[in-house]
Amino acid sequence: MADEEATTTDQQLRLFIERVERMEEEKKGVADDIRDVYSEAKSQGYDTKTMRELIKLRKMAANDRQEREMLLETYKAAIGLV
Amino acid sequence: MADEEATTTDQQLRLFIERVERMEEEKKGVADDIRDVYSEAKSQGYDTKTMRELIKLRKMAANDRQEREMLLETYKAAIGLV
Repeated sequence: MADEEATTTDQQLRLFIERVERMEEEKKGVADDIRDVYSEAKSQGYDTKTMRELIKLRKMAANDRQEREMLLETYKAAIGLV
Repeated sequence: MADEEATTTDQQLRLFIERVERMEEEKKGVADDIRDVYSEAKSQGYDTKTMRELIKLRKMAANDRQEREMLLETYKAAIGLV
């Protein structure tokens, strides 16, 4: 009975590991796709370093906006403004 | 005409940026999913640090195997063994 239990646990661990590995593969696939887009842009004459910088700036702006919205929501909730 | 050309180029750059941003979002989504799996595993009593170590070891083993296979293929091709 203990053996059977251990096997179930081993099996569960294996499933967790395999799930993560599949997702890591998926993430790697997307990362490769991103690299391909940069390659394509580069082949069309775009400077990819500047593009990466641009994306970083847009992301920062988006985060700032989200933070401001979240703060506003928090303050609105605090004073019961719905 | 020059204006129109500039607009097309601007549009193309915008499309490249948006494609990368969508993919970055996708990558972030997968990364979040991976974190969720680790959380689930942790809640079932697994040590996630050890799990990460295990995945690293399996990956290294896989890379080694792939490298060995690639070398073998190269050497086989070199001596005309098909």
